[in-house]
Amino acid sequence: MKNAFYAQSGGVTAVINASACGVIETARAHSDKIGTVYAGQNGIIGALSENLIDTSKESAADIKALKHTPSGGFGSCRYKMKSLEANKAEYQRLIEVFQAHNIGYFFYNGGGDSADTCLKVSQLSESMDYPIQAVHIPKTVDNDLPITDNCPGFGSVAKYIAVSTMEASFDVASMCATSTKIFVLEVMGRHAGWIAAAGGLVDENIPVVILFPEIDFDEPKFLAKVDANVKKFGYCTIVVSEGTKWADGRFLAEQGTRDDFGHAQLGGAAPVVANLIKEALGYKYHWAVADYLQRSARHLASESDVEQAYALGEAAVEMALAGKNSVMPAIIRTGNNPYTWKIGSGELKDIANVEKMMPKNYISADGFGITAACREYLQPLIEGENYPPYKNGLPDYVVLKKQLAEKKLPEFKI
Amino acid sequence: MKNAFYAQSGGVTAVINASACGVIETARAHSDKIGTVYAGQNGIIGALSENLIDTSKESAADIKALKHTPSGGFGSCRYKMKSLEANKAEYQRLIEVFQAHNIGYFFYNGGGDSADTCLKVSQLSESMDYPIQAVHIPKTVDNDLPITDNCPGFGSVAKYIAVSTMEASFDVASMCATSTKIFVLEVMGRHAGWIAAAGGLVDENIPVVILFPEIDFDEPKFLAKVDANVKKFGYCTIVVSEGTKWADGRFLAEQGTRDDFGHAQLGGAAPVVANLIKEALGYKYHWAVADYLQRSARHLASESDVEQAYALGEAAVEMALAGKNSVMPAIIRTGNNPYTWKIGSGELKDIANVEKMMPKNYISADGFGITAACREYLQPLIEGENYPPYKNGLPDYVVLKKQLAEKKLPEFKI
Repeated sequence: MKNAFYAQSGGVTAVINASACGVIETARAHSDKIGTVYAGQNGIIGALSENLIDTSKESAADIKALKHTPSGGFGSCRYKMKSLEANKAEYQRLIEVFQAHNIGYFFYNGGGDSADTCLKVSQLSESMDYPIQAVHIPKTVDNDLPITDNCPGFGSVAKYIAVSTMEASFDVASMCATSTKIFVLEVMGRHAGWIAAAGGLVDENIPVVILFPEIDFDEPKFLAKVDANVKKFGYCTIVVSEGTKWADGRFLAEQGTRDDFGHAQLGGAAPVVANLIKEALGYKYHWAVADYLQRSARHLASESDVEQAYALGEAAVEMALAGKNSVMPAIIRTGNNPYTWKIGSGELKDIANVEKMMPKNYISADGFGITAACREYLQPLIEGENYPPYKNGLPDYVVLKKQLAEKKLPEFKI
Repeated sequence: MKNAFYAQSGGVTAVINASACGVIETARAHSDKIGTVYAGQNGIIGALSENLIDTSKESAADIKALKHTPSGGFGSCRYKMKSLEANKAEYQRLIEVFQAHNIGYFFYNGGGDSADTCLKVSQLSESMDYPIQAVHIPKTVDNDLPITDNCPGFGSVAKYIAVSTMEASFDVASMCATSTKIFVLEVMGRHAGWIAAAGGLVDENIPVVILFPEIDFDEPKFLAKVDANVKKFGYCTIVVSEGTKWADGRFLAEQGTRDDFGHAQLGGAAPVVANLIKEALGYKYHWAVADYLQRSARHLASESDVEQAYALGEAAVEMALAGKNSVMPAIIRTGNNPYTWKIGSGELKDIANVEKMMPKNYISADGFGITAACREYLQPLIEGENYPPYKNGLPDYVVLKKQLAEKKLPEFKI
C-alpha cells in the first residue's frame, strides 16, 4: 500500500484548505488502499527538503476545520520546477524522497504553473522509471485554468469584491450630496479582469465603472463616463484591476514618482485613478486597496466555492485510486438556473501552460462594464454563504500541529 | 400631538441605520403620543432646505430592513451649524420648518460636532422661544464620545479590522518561507488609535505591530521590532492608523512626492511604511488600505454593536416621550465576563465638544501593541455575529422610497 504526497502551491486562497480537507478525509476513508498522506511543508519545497508533514498526527476535528480556514494550512510557496533537462537533479531528489517514504500518489494543489510541475511529475514513471500517479487539484483566484468551469478560490474573491463594492457604494451614496462623490477600489488580477468583473455584479442602480487589464486605459473616455455617472447618480464607484495599463503598456500603478530622497515610490492603481479624477473633475474621492484581504476573506466565502474546493480534493483521491495519472478533476457546469455542476476531468497535457482569458463578449461595448453573458457566468459563483464558526468575536480558524515525519535522507541543497 | 424630526450626521457606519430603525419603530409603537417621523434628506441640510422624508410612507418591512443595512438610509452630510450668534438666520429657518410641520421632537444621530448642534437646538425653547425637545443619538466609528461606554459603529469596524488582520496574517504566514514577509494594513482614525487597536485583538501568536496616532513614529525602533518579528515568526503584520505622524508632526501619509507633471501625489500611510521596511530590511511586502470598506462592512457587523445602535434609537424616543431635553442615551457597561450593558444617559452640555481619547494605559510600553486593559475593554465590542439576509449572493440591503413631504415654505439659501 502506497502513501500519498499533497502540496499547496502559489498564492493561497480562502478555500485551498477545503481542498486539502477533501484530500485527507477521502484518503482516511480509504485507509485500506492508501497509507499516510504527507503534506509538503511550504509546498513542493517540503518534498525537495524532505520536510514532510505527517497529516496522520492531526485530529479528525482539526482536519475538518481546514474546510473553514483560509490560507495554506501546510504552507505554500512560489517555486516553479525547471524542465527535466534543465534540472534533472531536482527530479532525482523528488524520486528519492518519494521512495524513502513509499509515496505513490502525488496531489498538487495550484494554478497553471503547478499544473505544469504536476505534468512533469506524472511523467516520472516514463522518464525516470519511478511509478507514481500525479493528480492536479485546481486552485487560483485568477480563474485562468482551462477545462474547469471556474477555479476554487475565485468565487469567494468575487463574492468579497461584489459585496465590498456594494457596501462602499451605499456609503458614498449617502454622503455624496455634500462630501465624497468618488470611490475607487483596487482589486487583484494582473493579466485578466475576472476579479474586477465581479464589481459589476451589484444592482444596476449602482453606478460602477470597471477598469479591466484587457482594455487600454482611455483617460478622456473614462473621465467622461465618471462625470456622467456623478451627474446622473450623484456619485460613481470605480473598480480598477491592478493590471490596468495605459495604451503604451505601462501599468497605471507605475506612478513615476520619487520621494524626498529620490527613491522610486510604489503606489497602487487606485490612488492614481482617484487623483486623475480630482485633477480633471474636482470631485472629492476616497480609495481602497483590498490586496490580501480579498483572497483570505474566508468570513465571506461563497458556498459553492467551498463545496467545489472540497469536492475537487475528494475527486482527486478517487481518481488516483481508480488508477488515473496526469489528470485534473474539474468543475463542469450543467445548469444556470438553478446553478448545477458535476465533477469532470481533463488531461494535464491540455491544462499545463494554457491560460483561459476572459471572453471578449464578457466586457460591455464601452469597455467599462460586464455583459449579460458575463453576469450569467459569474452570478452562481458568488451564491450561498458558508460562515466559519466564531470564538470570542473572531473566526475559529485552525492552526495545525504540522509534525514532520522523520528524515531518512541526507540534506539537499535547493 | 407633535411630529418628530430625525437626521443622520457625519460619516456613516454599518449600524447607523439600526438606530434609525430603533427611532422609527419606537415612534410607531407610540403613535398615540408622537406623530409622523420626518427624516432629513441628507442630514440637517434636509431640515434647512425643507426636504423632509416622510417615513410614514415606508413599509414596516423596509423600516425593519434598516437594521441590517449599512450607510445612511436617508442620506447624511458633513455640515456644522455655526453658533446662534454667527448665523441666527439658520436657526430661525429651522424653527420655521419645524413650525410648518408641527415638529416638537429633534433626534440627531451623529458624533461630537453633531452633539454640539443638537445642544444648540435643545436651547431653542430658551433662546428663541420655540418649544422643542432635542435628543442626541451617539454614532461614530471614531469611538470618541464621552459618557457612553462606546459609540455605535465602532464595534463593527473593530470586528472588521480584527478579522481582516487575522485573515491576512494567516495568508502571509503560509507564504512567508519563500515570498511575502510583510503585510501592512492601513485603518481609519486620524486623531485616536481606537480602530488601530482592534488589530491587537488577534491571537497573541500572530505578530502584529500597531502604529498609533498617539505615538510619534520612531523609525529605527519600528524597524527593529519588525525585523525581530520576522526573525522569530517568519513574517510580520503591521496595522497603521491613517493618523500616524513623524515626531515633527507630519503625517506618514504625506509622502512629499510629485508625479511626472509635478503635481503633489497623495498616497496612504501603508505604502510609505511598506517602502521603509523594504528599503531598510529588504523584505517583500504587500499592503492594503481598507478605507470605506471598514465602516460599511455590515456583512461582518458585531452583534452587540447592532443591538446597541438599535437600543439607543429606541431609548432616544422613550426619553423624549418622558419629557427630556438636551440629553443623549448612552451605553453603560455593567460587566465584562460575560459582557453586560444597560442604557444610561448624559447631558449634552457634558458631551458637546468633549473628545474621549484612548487611555494611555491601553497602549503597551513599547508603543506598538495593546495592553490587557485595552483588550478587556475592546473584546466584548466585537463579539457576536449579526448577518444580513442574502439574495443572489449579495446582502439584501434596503433602499428606501424616500418620499418627500410637501413643502410649505419658500426656498432658503444655505
